[in-house]
Amino acid sequence: MAKNIFESSDAVRTAQPLRHAQSVTLNGPLLLESGGTLPSVTVAFETYGKLNEAGDNAILICHAISGDSHVARHNAEDDSGWWDILVGPGRPVDTNRFFVICPNLLGGCRGTTGPGSINPETGKPYGPDFPTTTIGDMVEVERRLLDHLGVGQLVAVVGGSVGGHQTLTWATRHPGRLRGAVVLASSPRLTSQALAFDVVGRNAIRRDPHYHGGQYYDKPHGPGVGLALARMIGHITYLSPEAMSQKFEADRLHPRDVAIEFEKTFSVGSYLGHQGTKFVERFDANSYITLSLAMDLFDLGGTPEQLAASFSHAQCRWLVLSFSSDWLFQPRQSRDIVNALIRNNAAVSYCDIESNCGHDAFLLPDDFDRYGEMVRAFIQNLAPVPHPPGVEKDEQHGRTSIFHEHRLDYDRIVELIPPGASVLDLGCGTGSLLARLKHRGPGRLVGVELDERKILGALQRDLNVIHADLNEGLRAFADKQFDCVVLSQTLPAVKDVEGVIAEMLRVGATGIVSFPNLAFHKLRRILAEEGRAPRAYGWFKNQWHDTADIRFLSIADFESFCAEKKFHIQRRIALNTETGQEITTDANRNADLAIFVLGHNPHEKP
Amino acid sequence: MAKNIFESSDAVRTAQPLRHAQSVTLNGPLLLESGGTLPSVTVAFETYGKLNEAGDNAILICHAISGDSHVARHNAEDDSGWWDILVGPGRPVDTNRFFVICPNLLGGCRGTTGPGSINPETGKPYGPDFPTTTIGDMVEVERRLLDHLGVGQLVAVVGGSVGGHQTLTWATRHPGRLRGAVVLASSPRLTSQALAFDVVGRNAIRRDPHYHGGQYYDKPHGPGVGLALARMIGHITYLSPEAMSQKFEADRLHPRDVAIEFEKTFSVGSYLGHQGTKFVERFDANSYITLSLAMDLFDLGGTPEQLAASFSHAQCRWLVLSFSSDWLFQPRQSRDIVNALIRNNAAVSYCDIESNCGHDAFLLPDDFDRYGEMVRAFIQNLAPVPHPPGVEKDEQHGRTSIFHEHRLDYDRIVELIPPGASVLDLGCGTGSLLARLKHRGPGRLVGVELDERKILGALQRDLNVIHADLNEGLRAFADKQFDCVVLSQTLPAVKDVEGVIAEMLRVGATGIVSFPNLAFHKLRRILAEEGRAPRAYGWFKNQWHDTADIRFLSIADFESFCAEKKFHIQRRIALNTETGQEITTDANRNADLAIFVLGHNPHEKP
Repeated sequence: MAKNIFESSDAVRTAQPLRHAQSVTLNGPLLLESGGTLPSVTVAFETYGKLNEAGDNAILICHAISGDSHVARHNAEDDSGWWDILVGPGRPVDTNRFFVICPNLLGGCRGTTGPGSINPETGKPYGPDFPTTTIGDMVEVERRLLDHLGVGQLVAVVGGSVGGHQTLTWATRHPGRLRGAVVLASSPRLTSQALAFDVVGRNAIRRDPHYHGGQYYDKPHGPGVGLALARMIGHITYLSPEAMSQKFEADRLHPRDVAIEFEKTFSVGSYLGHQGTKFVERFDANSYITLSLAMDLFDLGGTPEQLAASFSHAQCRWLVLSFSSDWLFQPRQSRDIVNALIRNNAAVSYCDIESNCGHDAFLLPDDFDRYGEMVRAFIQNLAPVPHPPGVEKDEQHGRTSIFHEHRLDYDRIVELIPPGASVLDLGCGTGSLLARLKHRGPGRLVGVELDERKILGALQRDLNVIHADLNEGLRAFADKQFDCVVLSQTLPAVKDVEGVIAEMLRVGATGIVSFPNLAFHKLRRILAEEGRAPRAYGWFKNQWHDTADIRFLSIADFESFCAEKKFHIQRRIALNTETGQEITTDANRNADLAIFVLGHNPHEKP
Repeated sequence: MAKNIFESSDAVRTAQPLRHAQSVTLNGPLLLESGGTLPSVTVAFETYGKLNEAGDNAILICHAISGDSHVARHNAEDDSGWWDILVGPGRPVDTNRFFVICPNLLGGCRGTTGPGSINPETGKPYGPDFPTTTIGDMVEVERRLLDHLGVGQLVAVVGGSVGGHQTLTWATRHPGRLRGAVVLASSPRLTSQALAFDVVGRNAIRRDPHYHGGQYYDKPHGPGVGLALARMIGHITYLSPEAMSQKFEADRLHPRDVAIEFEKTFSVGSYLGHQGTKFVERFDANSYITLSLAMDLFDLGGTPEQLAASFSHAQCRWLVLSFSSDWLFQPRQSRDIVNALIRNNAAVSYCDIESNCGHDAFLLPDDFDRYGEMVRAFIQNLAPVPHPPGVEKDEQHGRTSIFHEHRLDYDRIVELIPPGASVLDLGCGTGSLLARLKHRGPGRLVGVELDERKILGALQRDLNVIHADLNEGLRAFADKQFDCVVLSQTLPAVKDVEGVIAEMLRVGATGIVSFPNLAFHKLRRILAEEGRAPRAYGWFKNQWHDTADIRFLSIADFESFCAEKKFHIQRRIALNTETGQEITTDANRNADLAIFVLGHNPHEKP
């Protein structure tokens, strides 16, 4: 019935560099981690912008499994690149300012040595004799290329998916060689599910009768059906279920008019058949096996301890981004990376971008207005252009603030924290408090924030900020990792109050908690005399039915709570923020804001 | 390299009934929905228990794509069945009480006519000439089997996955023929993602060179590689990513010792290769194509309106269950079914079972202690054994109740609702209020509840209860679908107060809202005199830091809110639940509980 269209195909079977690619043959043989050796390695790559004299304005871009060296267009007439949104003049990776290098991967089929290349020992393509290649081997080739190009320390390595695996490897293997690592939609190793899809894809290729044990280059037909099946499976995993529905539900039973030798009953089937067919025209099956196996073998560890050990030598700053609907490289896997880096006191920022686009999100424009700006801010702050100093403007907490123009509580909290102390700020917003502490002098400062937009703000202030929900705990942080943990004006939003405060005191030597006082005399009067719920207990804006706050407490409530739970109060500051005065008499009636310093009581009885 | 083990396999290629299966050849030809005809259809089936004289104690079980007629063991020595947990003596589908029938599907390969059966017109297996078969065709065969067996109205049809598709079809095509439908892990139609996986599986089979266009029965080799690949893909989709991690992470790089001709590098690969290889020994590739295509073509509609139309003739009661980690037949798809049934005023209960087991959850014991009891309760209440009447015991709301022994508010709310009125109870718990209304007489009663265990309680009380989060809205319900919508003691847990009340008044002619009054004099005194947050504002148990309540309001607050938002208050009842008295003077100070009846004000000015 179905004719094999690949029988007459002009499919690329051997390594063909792209139009703008340069190529260089590296000095000497390459010893691989598998024990094998490649006597000679050629790398195809493209560059953008100019390397400065110091050789320190370079950014390395690492591509994913089916990518190539053409990361961006070189001019307006050029073919589009696979990451034009990120790389180019004025883009977050700004080619006006940086020298950008994108090499084709070792084992690939776009100019860099791979299974389709001629084995100098036999004069024939390597085919199945191409040795097992790891992400580490790819990075070693990239490193030699940079040496060849005269690049010293990189500003950053940037990569998504398998490109992220390379970026992680750069940071752990060559810690002195990069100032920053931008890791998108990646993982410390594949999930068993992702690995399973790869296995099925490789089985489809290897069990295609035209695979001929991998030596199909001189045969009339290659394993096109198997490679197309592998690509179809891959394509499903790159899209979110929601994105697939949006793409294919409207014309579910109306397949697109494409010339394919696969099932065309359903719209989604015609799409997959088309993608599979097209892929065979530009990709080599042995390269697909080689690269997917390298990805599957990549493994920085399966436990927090192993991961922390893997990252123990890393020195760079990190921006880790995941995408909420990515089920191939799941957000929780990025969090595993981030948690290990946190454990090592590395300078890391993280955000899980709310996205509908699945794994492909990092390549698509849909969510780029948010994560692209994060990459821009992070790279800006890595680059050696001095950051203009200045007094940071205070943040206005519309929701919970009971302050008029100035965050009086920040003044007091900054006074309470010794210079140089390490500080974790829970619910840090755009980082107003941390920026003040940073302005005062060096010290390890980390913020935790739930709101994506505020995270961007904190990144723009050159702070380290972690996207996390306090109510899910502080498991990422080690015991006594900080001198001080701050919960400023965030207590009203906390679900598990006891749990969060206990975690603060596990993670920090001291904890600072500030909150508005429900028993302030003006608030008491509202309930007692007017019979009304004190409006947001801060007499601004929000009412009982539209406040986001869920905890309302007085100074007396908090003191009683601490006594009951054996949280030791080291110090209490009660303020009337209307007058700016500290309250010493009948604070529970006269203060509208309280700041508590909590710590461990050495004399506490069990 | 790899030898094709299927070349020498004794794989079952033609229909072979199982040991305990009976079989019957139906009278006359079967005209199929595709326009094709099968001149003769044989059905293999197994039965359990005894049909009573009235012929009305039968339950039909419908199997999924790779299942068969052996749903349960017939005795202790028998091979295990695929749904032993559900079906058997004393099980939720109790074979001591019910006559259980499980037929092999039309198009299958376990005794019922399928592509491997002999085409009487040619004397050879149908192969690719087997006509396209739909779920409707399968149900038609099942219906004729029941006629043959003398079964009248079924107690229930029960099925998961594609078995659910058959159950849905039974209820829509033969509404008088069943009292209840139990639909597990199913959908109105496949997602584009699920469909895509099926397409790739069929492509793998059809492009296997040993497929021979489907006429491989007389060939030395069948399309075993393609079928095994399809099965591997299927297996991945049946498991949740979490379940795969649990199964394969510990020994990730240590494949199981299985004799397979597929990649064995990874543990998960050895498992999939084994599953694929085993499947080829018991399943026919043409049957796989036929059944998976029937599943993919099943379509009750892609919009709420189309779905409601599909269910317009259904008369039975419904229990719909989904599983939280099922990504193949997603919970939202079960909700689409449920929402359409709600729209039609059908008697439907729904629960999304919290599970880690993916699509396979409905076959596994892991979560059975919860969903199995739901099926038991539902079927018990369908069966014609009279339910002992009696006064329902009131529910004790530990969290928000301000009542001592008796839910005084229920007394008043029941009085406010005219007999026979249709009522939607939001946050119904185990259904105490609804049970009282039901006890009083007929009327359409529906509960909405978030807690799985309370849903079981409501099912055991023979109530219709929908698993849903109020805070996500009442979109499932049509305008003015109920005479009365009740929000009793649930307001304190509502996030979007205005949204939920607006929805209540869209869905109901009137709304009844009850809540504890924050301005009750004892509570005012706690804040005013003690300077403490009134404990849970109900002076019981919970304190500011551990209450689940997030909204605290007084009678005056609510009245002001209704005035502002133009919610018309028809009636207010203020109670002192300590004394049991209705309060008429200064209610905002003297009442600890308020009940408001809201409705539309015909004289309201815009």
